[in-house]
Amino acid sequence: MSLNNDAVSAQLSAFFQAHLPITQFMNMDVEKYDGQTLTLSAPLAPNINDKQTAFGGSLYNAAVMACWGMAYLKTREAGIECNQVVTKGSIEYKAPVHGDIRAICHAPSKEVIEQFIEHFKHKGRSRITLNATIECSGKTAVEFEGTYAILSE
Amino acid sequence: MSLNNDAVSAQLSAFFQAHLPITQFMNMDVEKYDGQTLTLSAPLAPNINDKQTAFGGSLYNAAVMACWGMAYLKTREAGIECNQVVTKGSIEYKAPVHGDIRAICHAPSKEVIEQFIEHFKHKGRSRITLNATIECSGKTAVEFEGTYAILSE
Repeated sequence: MSLNNDAVSAQLSAFFQAHLPITQFMNMDVEKYDGQTLTLSAPLAPNINDKQTAFGGSLYNAAVMACWGMAYLKTREAGIECNQVVTKGSIEYKAPVHGDIRAICHAPSKEVIEQFIEHFKHKGRSRITLNATIECSGKTAVEFEGTYAILSE
Repeated sequence: MSLNNDAVSAQLSAFFQAHLPITQFMNMDVEKYDGQTLTLSAPLAPNINDKQTAFGGSLYNAAVMACWGMAYLKTREAGIECNQVVTKGSIEYKAPVHGDIRAICHAPSKEVIEQFIEHFKHKGRSRITLNATIECSGKTAVEFEGTYAILSE
């Protein structure tokens, strides 16, 4: 699986570079993908705010794209090429992030992913809700939940 | 009031430039503030996605800062200097935004603002929930709600 994980995460990284200029300004990239967990990272400097911590908008961007990336990777692993959009996002800022941003999305259960993929195969559209967190100094600083829709191209 | 509106909105614009590099990459600025409505705008180009519409993260950033800006302006109008942070945000993407981003926050009622300010004066901290929308082709494309806390410096 590890070669496949590397290949699909390289696709995701290339997607950011090709299509989302703001992620390039943020210097956001795929740090790790092991099939179960996707970590996106971005250094503090371009994402800083007036308090010398990470800007809330950058934290949202990292979290929304960690979950977006998970949906992207799971569809590509299933051999699906589709359009994918975020339809809803909610974020809670529990503590400031004092250093680099690291947004982590854990894959949902195999059953949830199978249902997401099977629904798409039958209906040409599907929807999934995913969660991401951002930690700082070992505690959860940000909690994010987003809903994503996929549609036939 | 118009000179005052211009003066405080110039302060907000200067704040973005001084403290939030990502807003400069987005080319986000204060388009209008009349005391009741704050409009932030950002051109499509730096905020584009793979579908040639506005990236969901940029839409969030514009909306979260329109409401942040409203809280900033209302505290400055009341003569308060304080720290201000976003504590929660939720966004619904109802339709794509095909052109420049224009995020609009309407001031809440005078009573809500007075309560926000008075609570701060007595307790040294306060909290307010604000809403913003982004329109495209005359219909609401994005609905945002954010909660903001102010604290003594």
